[in-house]
Amino acid sequence: MRDDPRPGLAYPPSDAPAIDLRGVVSVHDFEAPARERLHPAAWAYYEGGAWDGHTLHANVTAWNRWQLRPRVLVDVSQVTLETTILGRPASLPIGVAPAALHGLAHPDGELATARAASAAGAINVVSTVASRSIEEIAAAAPDARRWFQLYVQRDWGVTRGLVERAAAAGYEALVLTVDAPVLGYRDDILRRTFDPGEDAYANLPKRDAWRHGGELDEILDMRGVPLTWATLDEIRSWAPLPLVLKGILTAEDARLAVDHGADAVWVSNHGGRQLDRSPAAIEVLEEVVDAVEGQADVYLDGGIRRGPDVLVALALGATAVFAARPLLYALACAGEAGVAHALRIYRDEIDRALAIAGVTRPSALRRDHVRVVSSDR
Amino acid sequence: MRDDPRPGLAYPPSDAPAIDLRGVVSVHDFEAPARERLHPAAWAYYEGGAWDGHTLHANVTAWNRWQLRPRVLVDVSQVTLETTILGRPASLPIGVAPAALHGLAHPDGELATARAASAAGAINVVSTVASRSIEEIAAAAPDARRWFQLYVQRDWGVTRGLVERAAAAGYEALVLTVDAPVLGYRDDILRRTFDPGEDAYANLPKRDAWRHGGELDEILDMRGVPLTWATLDEIRSWAPLPLVLKGILTAEDARLAVDHGADAVWVSNHGGRQLDRSPAAIEVLEEVVDAVEGQADVYLDGGIRRGPDVLVALALGATAVFAARPLLYALACAGEAGVAHALRIYRDEIDRALAIAGVTRPSALRRDHVRVVSSDR
Amino acid sequence: MRDDPRPGLAYPPSDAPAIDLRGVVSVHDFEAPARERLHPAAWAYYEGGAWDGHTLHANVTAWNRWQLRPRVLVDVSQVTLETTILGRPASLPIGVAPAALHGLAHPDGELATARAASAAGAINVVSTVASRSIEEIAAAAPDARRWFQLYVQRDWGVTRGLVERAAAAGYEALVLTVDAPVLGYRDDILRRTFDPGEDAYANLPKRDAWRHGGELDEILDMRGVPLTWATLDEIRSWAPLPLVLKGILTAEDARLAVDHGADAVWVSNHGGRQLDRSPAAIEVLEEVVDAVEGQADVYLDGGIRRGPDVLVALALGATAVFAARPLLYALACAGEAGVAHALRIYRDEIDRALAIAGVTRPSALRRDHVRVVSSDR
Amino acid sequence: MRDDPRPGLAYPPSDAPAIDLRGVVSVHDFEAPARERLHPAAWAYYEGGAWDGHTLHANVTAWNRWQLRPRVLVDVSQVTLETTILGRPASLPIGVAPAALHGLAHPDGELATARAASAAGAINVVSTVASRSIEEIAAAAPDARRWFQLYVQRDWGVTRGLVERAAAAGYEALVLTVDAPVLGYRDDILRRTFDPGEDAYANLPKRDAWRHGGELDEILDMRGVPLTWATLDEIRSWAPLPLVLKGILTAEDARLAVDHGADAVWVSNHGGRQLDRSPAAIEVLEEVVDAVEGQADVYLDGGIRRGPDVLVALALGATAVFAARPLLYALACAGEAGVAHALRIYRDEIDRALAIAGVTRPSALRRDHVRVVSSDR
Repeated sequence: MRDDPRPGLAYPPSDAPAIDLRGVVSVHDFEAPARERLHPAAWAYYEGGAWDGHTLHANVTAWNRWQLRPRVLVDVSQVTLETTILGRPASLPIGVAPAALHGLAHPDGELATARAASAAGAINVVSTVASRSIEEIAAAAPDARRWFQLYVQRDWGVTRGLVERAAAAGYEALVLTVDAPVLGYRDDILRRTFDPGEDAYANLPKRDAWRHGGELDEILDMRGVPLTWATLDEIRSWAPLPLVLKGILTAEDARLAVDHGADAVWVSNHGGRQLDRSPAAIEVLEEVVDAVEGQADVYLDGGIRRGPDVLVALALGATAVFAARPLLYALACAGEAGVAHALRIYRDEIDRALAIAGVTRPSALRRDHVRVVSSDR
Repeated sequence: MRDDPRPGLAYPPSDAPAIDLRGVVSVHDFEAPARERLHPAAWAYYEGGAWDGHTLHANVTAWNRWQLRPRVLVDVSQVTLETTILGRPASLPIGVAPAALHGLAHPDGELATARAASAAGAINVVSTVASRSIEEIAAAAPDARRWFQLYVQRDWGVTRGLVERAAAAGYEALVLTVDAPVLGYRDDILRRTFDPGEDAYANLPKRDAWRHGGELDEILDMRGVPLTWATLDEIRSWAPLPLVLKGILTAEDARLAVDHGADAVWVSNHGGRQLDRSPAAIEVLEEVVDAVEGQADVYLDGGIRRGPDVLVALALGATAVFAARPLLYALACAGEAGVAHALRIYRDEIDRALAIAGVTRPSALRRDHVRVVSSDR
Repeated sequence: MRDDPRPGLAYPPSDAPAIDLRGVVSVHDFEAPARERLHPAAWAYYEGGAWDGHTLHANVTAWNRWQLRPRVLVDVSQVTLETTILGRPASLPIGVAPAALHGLAHPDGELATARAASAAGAINVVSTVASRSIEEIAAAAPDARRWFQLYVQRDWGVTRGLVERAAAAGYEALVLTVDAPVLGYRDDILRRTFDPGEDAYANLPKRDAWRHGGELDEILDMRGVPLTWATLDEIRSWAPLPLVLKGILTAEDARLAVDHGADAVWVSNHGGRQLDRSPAAIEVLEEVVDAVEGQADVYLDGGIRRGPDVLVALALGATAVFAARPLLYALACAGEAGVAHALRIYRDEIDRALAIAGVTRPSALRRDHVRVVSSDR
Repeated sequence: MRDDPRPGLAYPPSDAPAIDLRGVVSVHDFEAPARERLHPAAWAYYEGGAWDGHTLHANVTAWNRWQLRPRVLVDVSQVTLETTILGRPASLPIGVAPAALHGLAHPDGELATARAASAAGAINVVSTVASRSIEEIAAAAPDARRWFQLYVQRDWGVTRGLVERAAAAGYEALVLTVDAPVLGYRDDILRRTFDPGEDAYANLPKRDAWRHGGELDEILDMRGVPLTWATLDEIRSWAPLPLVLKGILTAEDARLAVDHGADAVWVSNHGGRQLDRSPAAIEVLEEVVDAVEGQADVYLDGGIRRGPDVLVALALGATAVFAARPLLYALACAGEAGVAHALRIYRDEIDRALAIAGVTRPSALRRDHVRVVSSDR
């Protein structure tokens, strides 16, 4: 492992210039150079999962259960990626999932991500745990679609302040993370000090836990928060924003979400970082879609690496999908240009996959465009 | 990787003499020496698949789902490989699948392949993207059965010209590729310049794309071609040839093919080179056969390496099967003699497998000669 | 393999000081250093399984069939691990499974284990084949919950004496091992002399077999013991202790156990050490739970390494689970402190997993908190 | 690979003394030293399979689909391995499967095998292609149970002669191989000259094929033999011996066998040496047993390596099982003593496995002593 002489995990993580994007033809290509460029602790933090990584692994492999059924002799001379997300037109069916601390990947942090997403027409979901302030990020791409991901904190006033700031800064939806009443058990984090420094969290009040490199749930003051179905209405009362519930993995909770007025259900296992042995999102997408009965959007993250993956998720009923790690690695490799390149690759791949599948737009994908694999190996 | 001092991918790819065929007892044996002899870019082009290669891999492994059920105490003192393909007698149930640019493998290119196929009694399907002209190839083996594979091009006149030339040159059927409205996303191709040179495509008009090593779908002028079920009749009007639709992977399209008068349905995923995560042909053969209801021939390609593979496909209802890569590698190893040797191996293996299976001719294979594997590993 | 100059397998197995527990965040972390510290024959004895190890391997991998279904927006600000085991309150749902000869791992042997279990509030099951006497172990942690595991011996009087001593020393239940009428076939044991020495077994009369390093079933005088359902009542007559039957793997025997008045059924394959090709306990837990119909406790051991494993077992109906090898390795690494640390890790992991799963106490886990994995790999 | 200076494959294959059997605790332990001691061509001949070895591999792995369900608290103080095979008492439920040319493994060849089998009480099935004569082998162990395996040859008189000699020499049954109308396609054999020399086949007339190392089916004059259900009666008319049909893999043929008066059906894929992609015997045992409906014995070979394997086969309905390769390797390692040791290991393992399974004799194993594995890996 690289011996990094610099203190903490301070950015820029490397003095190396951006990598040459001409050789990058898949988001896989960002991974190895990002690992080289990131501080080892930052890499471990981004890449790792909870406990033994069963769920982290499933996020990549569970896709293999599904195959696409391409239809032929369809006129695909005009393919569009446009679709409708949260009731508004979107340029493409993939967006930027929330992830902590883009500043570990690049000095520009979330500003670079916001600009690249804006240029690509991708919805950008900004994390509570961003390296840059809610307002700075909004200002970086003022006309783009952006949502705010909320970690509810034990201090109810702090939480409300975050929501009000997001609404004021033009974030158009609230993405409430519901799968993290505490954080997952992370062997790798527990073994090495992950201390991004006092200034890392731009939107949170400073707390003692920051001084000693405490766990993120100490920093976030998350443990013991009485966040339940009953408190959703109060959160909603703070700002007139659509509410997306992120981290749902069961039909029962999907149904409860709709019954409690959620505008969208986001199927996710938090990148394999919360409960190990929980399913990959793609494994439970169908049961969630069935439970939602068309009464809310359904999003999905986890393991989206290639265009055909996106088609599988949409065919199974997802409204849109989101990616995180590949975009963080693109950010680490080439800043804003890296993220823009990654989103361009996703667009090109989805476009080409749709054409070969005989489908002219995302919303035309149906359940019979996929099948369960029948080969044993 | 070999450092090839010669310009472009010009043939002959190697000055080495043909390999000694006495040590070649399976078509697997051609692979390693072919890799040695081919230009690295030609090898990558032949061998590669689209996106992450899930489908490329499935083409080899999906066979493992099926097992043969040999019957005993049958008189197999007289086994024949003769069968009926497109309504005419054929010497054996395996033929040469269309593949681009045989000239990359051997100076004689498609002429060598045509002669070897003729000697073996195998149907030879010649690609639109051949290294030799439609007429030259016909002349190389004038009495043999040959079919013409058609890539429809945006210039309708060019396409019609190809069909008319094929009909005039005695090609007995038109194999219309329907799975390539655009070409699949090829990481390996995108990363290296695949430029076979200006003279590579013997049957296409020269276009600007040729000058700069453009992608094959630029060269073929394929994007934006309005090729649909509605335009099949027009193509058919150009020449009185039976029509084979190649690249079908669903029951729905198989049924549409029959309803639109196709004479045969060719189950294929284009060697794993088009839509990744699409099934292996052998995985969907049954649904296609069921949909066709005996009203058309059904062919299959993808991963046919050994005699028992052929039996599995025929038992599941294929009329015949086709191979491409093993024959290209045989061509690279020993030209016409190599292809002839490969076809002889296929014949010997099918013959021996039929005898042990207690089956005296290809058409006697039935669904109960196969079973789904019950062992988990 | 280490060349240990000391005679026999005499403890202390190593002069090395206890390992630094600050780097130990999972019970996996004890394994490698324990292997370093144990005599090779002791390591082989603890770690090995019967025959080809199919069952030993299944104990680890069979868990992968199950996934957890976490529920969100539940108030988990108060999570407790308290539960009820054999009708009495227990601090946590995991205990110490019986294992032979803790003295091979540490000079303090079962005394260290007993003290650590007591401090953690974990039930401690002491083996007939302990390195320390029944009474010493009781005295080491007089107020703790302890059960006595019984190997019935051919000498009925010896067996009765063990039971009476356990009852007198405050052991609150009898755990009768029913899966070992003879010991499993152990290739590794047969190939090397496993001879722990004359003084190894603190609770058994000395026999000739001890002199020549005989197999454990010779030492235990087990072969030919007429232990059947019909003899249970006699064993029970010796002491008024609840009876736990350990080593049941079928619904039929679970039902028989209840019908014969067993207080608990312990699902186990004896750590993969008895019949190879028998199932992992987790594979048959459901059929046992169904057969028991709530009329007895159900316990399980085999492959419990992480908190989420415990949740899976409890959701499928286990009352509690037990671990052995991880605790022996912790004992080898750091004596009492090691075992205490291991039990603390289990507690922390279960606590955190429950919270993320949206469950506030072990008994609230239900069948719908798990699902069968749907991904093929 | 060893460079063997001796001509041909002449035995003794090595001058090395017999290996030390004290370290041999499983039949696996014979494999590596046998490979060292055998001529490379003999090793390849024994070990190899047909085509790509799918079936050869399945023979080992297909067992993993099944698990044993041990029953507890059964009185197993008296376990016997005695059973009934072909209507007569047998000492144990495993026998010696026919295999060609024991002389390649040891100078004593089939004489050593016969003596060891006799001492163990195992039925010995002698191959048509033995290195020693039918009569010599009978004389080596005159009181033992021996059966004769028959390859029908094109010369009907030669075939009849073999049958008559076997009957005269006290072979008590005829094991007719029905799965080899021709031999399987063997890449490894085709690539190297397998020439055991003119004197190798003790029971066959010398033919021209012998001179040039021809394939075994040339030597055996097998191709074109009109061996069918209709000719069974003629073979049977030559001698009043029970008839065992070896090489059946389908319910249909098992039923036909019974209907044609076969006394036993032997489920086998010929050690993976005939039709590749055919199932492992254990995969189809159930369908065969169901078809036979108790009207004939059912035997099985293929991959029997350990005691628990035998229990699985018997529980699924096999009357007895047979092993070949492990015994050949034992023969190569230590001659008669090696085979005797291997049979003793099988006996010990079956005995111990029965006891732990709670079963007192082979015939008491029932279908509910096994289950299909439920873990995915």
